Amino acid sequence: MPEPATTSLWGVFETEFAGPRDGNPHHDVTLDVVFACDGREVVVPGYHDGDGTYRVRHMPDRLGEWRYVTRCNRAELDGLRGDFFCGPAGPGAHGPVAVRDRFHFAHADGTRYFPFGTTCYAWTHQPLAMQQQTLATLAGAGFNKLRMGVFPKHYIYSENEPLHRMFELGPDGREDFDRPNHAAFRHLERQVAALMQIGIEADIILFHPYDRWGYCAMSEAQDLAYLRHVVARLCGYRNVWWSLANEYDFLLDVKPLPVWDRFCQRIREWDPYGHPMSIHNGEVSMKYDHRKDWITHVSVQDWDVKRTAEWRQEWGKPLVNDEMEYEGDIPRPWGNISARELVHRFWLTVVRGGYGGHGETYLQDDDLLWWAKGGMLRGESAPRIAFLRALVEEDVETGLTPLSEDGRWEFNRVSGARDGDYRLLYFGEHQPAHWAVGLPMDDGDYEIDLIDTWEMTVTRIGKAPLPLSPALRQRGGAMAGGSPEAAFGVRLPGKPWQAIRVRRGRVSDVVAKPIANSS
Amino acid sequence: MPEPATTSLWGVFETEFAGPRDGNPHHDVTLDVVFACDGREVVVPGYHDGDGTYRVRHMPDRLGEWRYVTRCNRAELDGLRGDFFCGPAGPGAHGPVAVRDRFHFAHADGTRYFPFGTTCYAWTHQPLAMQQQTLATLAGAGFNKLRMGVFPKHYIYSENEPLHRMFELGPDGREDFDRPNHAAFRHLERQVAALMQIGIEADIILFHPYDRWGYCAMSEAQDLAYLRHVVARLCGYRNVWWSLANEYDFLLDVKPLPVWDRFCQRIREWDPYGHPMSIHNGEVSMKYDHRKDWITHVSVQDWDVKRTAEWRQEWGKPLVNDEMEYEGDIPRPWGNISARELVHRFWLTVVRGGYGGHGETYLQDDDLLWWAKGGMLRGESAPRIAFLRALVEEDVETGLTPLSEDGRWEFNRVSGARDGDYRLLYFGEHQPAHWAVGLPMDDGDYEIDLIDTWEMTVTRIGKAPLPLSPALRQRGGAMAGGSPEAAFGVRLPGKPWQAIRVRRGRVSDVVAKPIANSS
Repeated sequence: MPEPATTSLWGVFETEFAGPRDGNPHHDVTLDVVFACDGREVVVPGYHDGDGTYRVRHMPDRLGEWRYVTRCNRAELDGLRGDFFCGPAGPGAHGPVAVRDRFHFAHADGTRYFPFGTTCYAWTHQPLAMQQQTLATLAGAGFNKLRMGVFPKHYIYSENEPLHRMFELGPDGREDFDRPNHAAFRHLERQVAALMQIGIEADIILFHPYDRWGYCAMSEAQDLAYLRHVVARLCGYRNVWWSLANEYDFLLDVKPLPVWDRFCQRIREWDPYGHPMSIHNGEVSMKYDHRKDWITHVSVQDWDVKRTAEWRQEWGKPLVNDEMEYEGDIPRPWGNISARELVHRFWLTVVRGGYGGHGETYLQDDDLLWWAKGGMLRGESAPRIAFLRALVEEDVETGLTPLSEDGRWEFNRVSGARDGDYRLLYFGEHQPAHWAVGLPMDDGDYEIDLIDTWEMTVTRIGKAPLPLSPALRQRGGAMAGGSPEAAFGVRLPGKPWQAIRVRRGRVSDVVAKPIANSS
Repeated sequence: MPEPATTSLWGVFETEFAGPRDGNPHHDVTLDVVFACDGREVVVPGYHDGDGTYRVRHMPDRLGEWRYVTRCNRAELDGLRGDFFCGPAGPGAHGPVAVRDRFHFAHADGTRYFPFGTTCYAWTHQPLAMQQQTLATLAGAGFNKLRMGVFPKHYIYSENEPLHRMFELGPDGREDFDRPNHAAFRHLERQVAALMQIGIEADIILFHPYDRWGYCAMSEAQDLAYLRHVVARLCGYRNVWWSLANEYDFLLDVKPLPVWDRFCQRIREWDPYGHPMSIHNGEVSMKYDHRKDWITHVSVQDWDVKRTAEWRQEWGKPLVNDEMEYEGDIPRPWGNISARELVHRFWLTVVRGGYGGHGETYLQDDDLLWWAKGGMLRGESAPRIAFLRALVEEDVETGLTPLSEDGRWEFNRVSGARDGDYRLLYFGEHQPAHWAVGLPMDDGDYEIDLIDTWEMTVTRIGKAPLPLSPALRQRGGAMAGGSPEAAFGVRLPGKPWQAIRVRRGRVSDVVAKPIANSS
């Protein structure tokens, strides 16, 4: 690949070097490239891409001239120099995502990032036409994060042959975990880049337990070489997140806890950009200790989503519930909740200060389930999750803070959150005909809108007197033994799946529309 | 009242004595009556019923001749003797309820008792015509337990004047907590007896925080005299349960924890029949320590009902969730869930090995909400809860044991329970189109029925092959990293709110109907 003279900010600068072909370069050759610009220095791991070609991929985070020099344990690859120029960011390139304001995320340019993810674990291992279909679906579905594995997945409804084996066959006809199949990894890179083009973060799952190829049982040396290889290949893409595992606890027999800790620490050393990193549990009781300092955010599997605010406090980091069960109808309890329930769980999660992940598992005669393979979405939750995303992106500046953190017990039962003057209350299975708690009590210039989370409608409503006795209203609503309550509130339709938003003194379009993904 | 010559088993034997009128009999006169029959001796507390009349109410639990003698600190009431004959139990009289098989209940004659309760906190303080309406509603509603307070309730929607004050007015025009209003307590007794006649256990709430009369702030001596008085008046009714408090933790400023412990211990001493006893919390984090040995069963308020099996294990006693939020539409989060949600929570609770309580809080122009005042039921959950009760009573012999206790993780997500060969699986918000886990794997002669919990239908279904790949089916369904799974299962409609029951080798009517309360 010819070296580009110019790379845009947070784009991918890639270059290659000819180097040794002897021995096993995957294990034997350690290449780093030191990039420098205006006093900033970034050490980027390089990797062997087959046939004596070595490659490095760098994401420049500073405008101007970058110079680089290689460092290698093989003289022929050591001390090689070059430079390139980093120009302004391309359209839609806001830089990598990082934690901001403790419980939230933002891109490097300050643009807020609220993850609304979905899951296609083995999409890059399906026939190419189906992968194209997956990308086309994702471009219009309203998700901005995708959980996906490096390895193929062997599981119910995911038993077909993968497009590529990840390692070369050895003389015994079995995969040799010391020799990566570079074509397979190049394909993975292309698809990560394709996701980047449509504005989707790639939450790269490095290990998982659903394996018939032996990838679970590689030695620790093989694991580490593999991890460095993946980090070197992918860290230059701004949309990469590291998910050490899907359901790490189901792998504890072959990779005990200290091994996971070491893996995390090594990735932190290798990845110069500090991409988001977490580990996803299987059993709800086996969540990783996300307080460990190499973990940037909490990635959990747990269906009990009303506890989101509690988890957030427990770990003190952004909370992403990547598996709150999936919309579908398969005979597995994690894959058969109704669309309405998944939409409900998203709202509960978001309005309790967390972020969620979608998946879809409807039985198909041809086993083409979105959650494993991508392809087409068939369910009803995705557009409603996109509607929620649009509402959040329309108004939230920093991130949502649960009202339960203000000590309001009501918001352990119903859900409510604030962001500055903005408030979003979600009632779910609750169906009050009136409501007051959590609404602003002053006479400010507030707009109050009723949101039907399923019908995806937004309707302006006003304040109304609460149906309290005159005596109670006269007392200003103070309750004996209960909550203080205002004498006014809002009138609601008395049916479930409703929400309210409150915005101060702004004139805007009443109806929020699902947004398209920006590139 | 003339002394009856004969009382039926578990009926009420009541007799009276003339005694001192001087001083304050409520505090000063301590009367016990020792009842004996065929070697069994029962010490029953007596009480002053006003105007120098003393009364005792005894529930004989043995057939034959009973003799009694009074013990009193005043000579004129000491050593008085009498007798009566106890004949067979009347229709519908199965004796008091007690714990059976650790997590369940039964009447004294061995008849199982599965609590399906409702709540009318202050119904005995409403106009008499409304109380009649409440009893008429209860006779046909399918509930078999009622939570009700001794004291009236001052709270939103419950601000009217109570029918009776519970104590006499003193010279200062305020209630004198040393002088019970006997008319009020007699009225309470009559209504407990009326509930007994229609087969409803009366879960008597002794204290609660919603008070404008000062009942919360009585001295400990006044509290203890009041408690002994209530125990003496009511313990002779077989349908009585003691609920030390509704939301005891909201009273901790005036009654710290050791006070509650003392109250419980004293009631245990006074009540010779060992009626069920518990304490109900307000905050979910403030549940009483139900392991204490004076507590017979767990009474909790908690909306997170998927944790029912966990709580059951934590306390090791029968679990009654008396407040899982109420069907309604008021602007309080505990009183505005949809009927569907309350039915859902009942199913979740029962099929995870617990028992539940209903309440209804729909806004009314005249503030006549069932939960506080009784009257009419307006909601849609009650008949569906009765349907569940009918299903349970039709088949369950001992009580339901959650399948999660067999180590099946699936039943933390969906719900399932067994009782001998009987199984009841509940899917709720899950909508599998096929299901296998938890079904019997042998070739026994099983009947499998599909239950629509909302539509209240029962439909016979059969076994069906699961939609697995031929390879997977051939492997017997064993999953790499997943669950063992049979190659067969049942086909389901792929919509929420469904349940399955499995019964071995019996021929019976397919459709269960809600049962009427028996007297």
